[in-house]
Amino acid sequence: MPNFHASAMDGIAVQASRTYAAHEKNPLQLKKGTDFVIVDTGDPIPDGFDAVIMIEDVHMIDEETYEILEPASPWQHIRQIGEDVVAGELIVPANHVLRPVDLGAMLAGGIVEVPVFRKPLVSIIPTGTELVSPREQIKRGEIPEFNGTVFAGYLQTWGAEPVNKGIVEDHYEKIKQTVREALASSDIVLLNAGSSAGTEDFTVHVIEELGEVLTHGVATRPGKPVVVGLVDGKPVIGLPGYPVSAYLALEWFVRPLVHQYLGISEPERPRIKATMGRRIVSVMGAEDFIRMTIGAVGGKFIANPLSRAAGVTMSMVRADGLLRIPANSLGYEQGEEAELELYHPLHQIEKTMVFAGSHDLTVDLLATAIHNHDPERFLSSAHVGSMGGILAIRKGEAHAAGVHLFDEQTGDYNIPFVKQYLPNIPFVLVNLVYRQQGWIVAPGNPRSIQTIEDLKREGIAYINRQRGAGTRLLFDYLLKQAGMQPDEVYGYNREDYSHLSVAAAVAGGTADCGLGILSAAKALKLDFVPVAEERYDLLMSKEFYESDAGQVLLQVMTSEAFIRQVESLGGYSCRDTGKIMQQSE
Amino acid sequence: MPNFHASAMDGIAVQASRTYAAHEKNPLQLKKGTDFVIVDTGDPIPDGFDAVIMIEDVHMIDEETYEILEPASPWQHIRQIGEDVVAGELIVPANHVLRPVDLGAMLAGGIVEVPVFRKPLVSIIPTGTELVSPREQIKRGEIPEFNGTVFAGYLQTWGAEPVNKGIVEDHYEKIKQTVREALASSDIVLLNAGSSAGTEDFTVHVIEELGEVLTHGVATRPGKPVVVGLVDGKPVIGLPGYPVSAYLALEWFVRPLVHQYLGISEPERPRIKATMGRRIVSVMGAEDFIRMTIGAVGGKFIANPLSRAAGVTMSMVRADGLLRIPANSLGYEQGEEAELELYHPLHQIEKTMVFAGSHDLTVDLLATAIHNHDPERFLSSAHVGSMGGILAIRKGEAHAAGVHLFDEQTGDYNIPFVKQYLPNIPFVLVNLVYRQQGWIVAPGNPRSIQTIEDLKREGIAYINRQRGAGTRLLFDYLLKQAGMQPDEVYGYNREDYSHLSVAAAVAGGTADCGLGILSAAKALKLDFVPVAEERYDLLMSKEFYESDAGQVLLQVMTSEAFIRQVESLGGYSCRDTGKIMQQSE
Repeated sequence: MPNFHASAMDGIAVQASRTYAAHEKNPLQLKKGTDFVIVDTGDPIPDGFDAVIMIEDVHMIDEETYEILEPASPWQHIRQIGEDVVAGELIVPANHVLRPVDLGAMLAGGIVEVPVFRKPLVSIIPTGTELVSPREQIKRGEIPEFNGTVFAGYLQTWGAEPVNKGIVEDHYEKIKQTVREALASSDIVLLNAGSSAGTEDFTVHVIEELGEVLTHGVATRPGKPVVVGLVDGKPVIGLPGYPVSAYLALEWFVRPLVHQYLGISEPERPRIKATMGRRIVSVMGAEDFIRMTIGAVGGKFIANPLSRAAGVTMSMVRADGLLRIPANSLGYEQGEEAELELYHPLHQIEKTMVFAGSHDLTVDLLATAIHNHDPERFLSSAHVGSMGGILAIRKGEAHAAGVHLFDEQTGDYNIPFVKQYLPNIPFVLVNLVYRQQGWIVAPGNPRSIQTIEDLKREGIAYINRQRGAGTRLLFDYLLKQAGMQPDEVYGYNREDYSHLSVAAAVAGGTADCGLGILSAAKALKLDFVPVAEERYDLLMSKEFYESDAGQVLLQVMTSEAFIRQVESLGGYSCRDTGKIMQQSE
Repeated sequence: MPNFHASAMDGIAVQASRTYAAHEKNPLQLKKGTDFVIVDTGDPIPDGFDAVIMIEDVHMIDEETYEILEPASPWQHIRQIGEDVVAGELIVPANHVLRPVDLGAMLAGGIVEVPVFRKPLVSIIPTGTELVSPREQIKRGEIPEFNGTVFAGYLQTWGAEPVNKGIVEDHYEKIKQTVREALASSDIVLLNAGSSAGTEDFTVHVIEELGEVLTHGVATRPGKPVVVGLVDGKPVIGLPGYPVSAYLALEWFVRPLVHQYLGISEPERPRIKATMGRRIVSVMGAEDFIRMTIGAVGGKFIANPLSRAAGVTMSMVRADGLLRIPANSLGYEQGEEAELELYHPLHQIEKTMVFAGSHDLTVDLLATAIHNHDPERFLSSAHVGSMGGILAIRKGEAHAAGVHLFDEQTGDYNIPFVKQYLPNIPFVLVNLVYRQQGWIVAPGNPRSIQTIEDLKREGIAYINRQRGAGTRLLFDYLLKQAGMQPDEVYGYNREDYSHLSVAAAVAGGTADCGLGILSAAKALKLDFVPVAEERYDLLMSKEFYESDAGQVLLQVMTSEAFIRQVESLGGYSCRDTGKIMQQSE
């Protein structure tokens, strides 16, 4: 390619040796047909010609006669045969993932067909009598089957062809039969779940009967209950039921297999060193895999752990990276550095605004609005309560923190606290919203809860917020005003970490009442008894406030669209949104 | 999710407040049904129970009576309602690319449908009377149409939906009609080529007639002839015809558009600083984009330019990265550092063996064999001739170099040269093959070329190799032996850079004869007149020779499979393959 000498320019084809006499002081006239022919870029060079002169360097005397002032050198402005691809040349090696440009070179080289590896067929068998399709109305005790969808997505990304065989109930013979069928039509079979050692965990026994169990259980947290087996020379893998365990085990055991089938190496995720924003404890004897949020604050990467529960899919969704704690380690102290594997590209993490502090639904809206405003920006939030947010700003571990701390002595919000805890730290405190706090109760308020005194009644179960939360401070203040003691409230010591989880406890019937915001009650279709309006501010480091990112945050939160959206939630006022309430000298 | 309190363990559900009396010295007996119920992991917690005790911590007295030694705390080992996802919680923000794990969290949260952006439809219109389908027999003057395939591949990768409208000849009205039709059914229209300013370049005129031309031409090398227009509010983009120009312009103008349609930010490629292995010259006034090979040699990244010709698709295939030279720069000196954009992940570049020196087809085979042996290893080669290879080893810019330099005085190959040029550098010289050099001539040897004297004949055109190439040295030696002068050979000054391009010149009829290897003649179905057998060695730095990578190279090149493959090419002997011919003290 090309298979002929082609003109690389618009111009005239000449025989170079017949142009040598041309000179500025001695113009050479050429006759069409004998001395030259007109060629456009890409045209074949006619036989007997061996150079091209650009049309810009040619003077037309008449239709038949052109004049040149400079000689041409042989092969100038000619794309010679085989310039791009020559027969016999190696275009790409075997075991290579064909990129679009490789296809171009292959076609240029006349290769229109190439043998490729068949994508490995992977059967997914979701097992469990409690599983139902997520499209059905989920009844109590039922679980929507979604691991199969996640497995299929990852398998496709890695280059395999997934087939979901449909839900099979916990019945030994039915599972065995489905595994047999799947083996006949696929290269790898995945069973989910039943990989543990409980009474209804059939995977290991099915594999044992049909073939050979290679491994049962790995020393990891989460991900422990994995079964790796071989039946008829094909891998049969039992993956744990908890989503996080399942996805990690899929990555450890199935991803390498798929790449092995395709004859390519597994892509590695980038790694960075990050500072631990909190102490992270590990028990020796098993590797811990902890999902982390990561932010670039003040020139260093700060990483904070998400929920470690294996059942929390959202910890995978929210994670920016994964921390692996070796089996022989007790974990990391706050401020210590550790290596993380990144789930997002570094430049995305560098552009992510790190939010700490109290949770409010408007912060979620803000996250979406910022990302819509500029797709390169993200807001990642860690819900650590108002006081946790102030401390994160003090330690330089967050850009912004949501705070709503009521000061009993002054009757003011937030300002006395930031003055006390940030004596030498440049900050700006900006109002986000005012919001209603109130009793979150079951629909129709069946226990008739109106005032804090009602919580003293026999059989009323309260659910509290964690220490350091603004809502906890408000509750303690209300208790004090009513002259009550904590032990008069049943459930005072039961702590939860967000408005939504308090509301979920009420919705689930394990608590009769919790203090929280209207939007959380509305989200779970609960009733709400207003108690107080409070100020929810954003505390920012001055450096962040003055940065591009800080200005984007301010621009978005004061935009008409955002304010309209917040006010339509109910229970919010934006009368001071964006107003500076206090700043350091 | 879950929508009920679920047991997190296999065990018994109890009411925590009724277990407080349990103690090691005061075992507590529990009655089935009233005091406890048996639960498996995932089972709903029956009403009236609020804790789970693991089965391992329970002693069975009889079927109906279990005993415990420790009290349970409320909610222990229970997955509470909403632990994973709570109604009202933000699962993912808008304008987010859904990953498999996001689908899992959405399904867990009861979201079975979500509005998504339609993939932008992009019509591709290949234009050119010279274009034919690559599946057809290509005649002289014809070009296989492959840019459309490459565009479609990239567009799919970026998330668009490409439609190839088929080849349209260079005819104004036909092109205009096709653009009109494409606009009716797509969001973006791409024309290729005809974007320049020649007589048959219709793109700019078609866009002008149908809508508005926003830009014609950009100050880049390659990629200059681009037309960006707007018709009926839709982008119509004319891309250059040369493949490299076309792909770069596609990336500059179409990739951002596709991401804009999808509401997401463009992923950035990683960048590294690399040392220039050669001087790279740039003319001011336009940005240069140069495809580079990159290797990690002796702890630093060495980058070397590939062909700068816009028609060389293989320069994109071979590139490890892209160097951008700003418009106001004259380029880089050898040894200077510059930033490169990477086409491959860094860890791949770090594992790539960097080969310099003379080209031989067996080196391509070796590249494939190494990659097959270990999919993580690559061999990237720069053909700089034998002397160039020795200098690359001396400067620490390559791991291995192919050399076949004949020394007139000793009659030996390579050893005198490496001794002279690497006086203080630890090296190992290992034989790869012996190979036949000979006259590459047209089939049937129509000009009856047998000896070097035949090249003196009137009308015989020779094609030479570049200075520093072992084959050039051999030719000069043969000249000297015959008592001939260079100017007695027509074409002595026409230099080409590889055996295959010399063979291509003979196949194309622009030369009657060249000196080269049998396999190159065979690849292009040419005849071959043997002249000499020569030794082709691999020169390696001692550090590389002793490294894992070096040992893999040696293992692969001495494998039976590789040797069988080489000998089946013809013209090669592997009698000393892998033998150390010389090494530094």
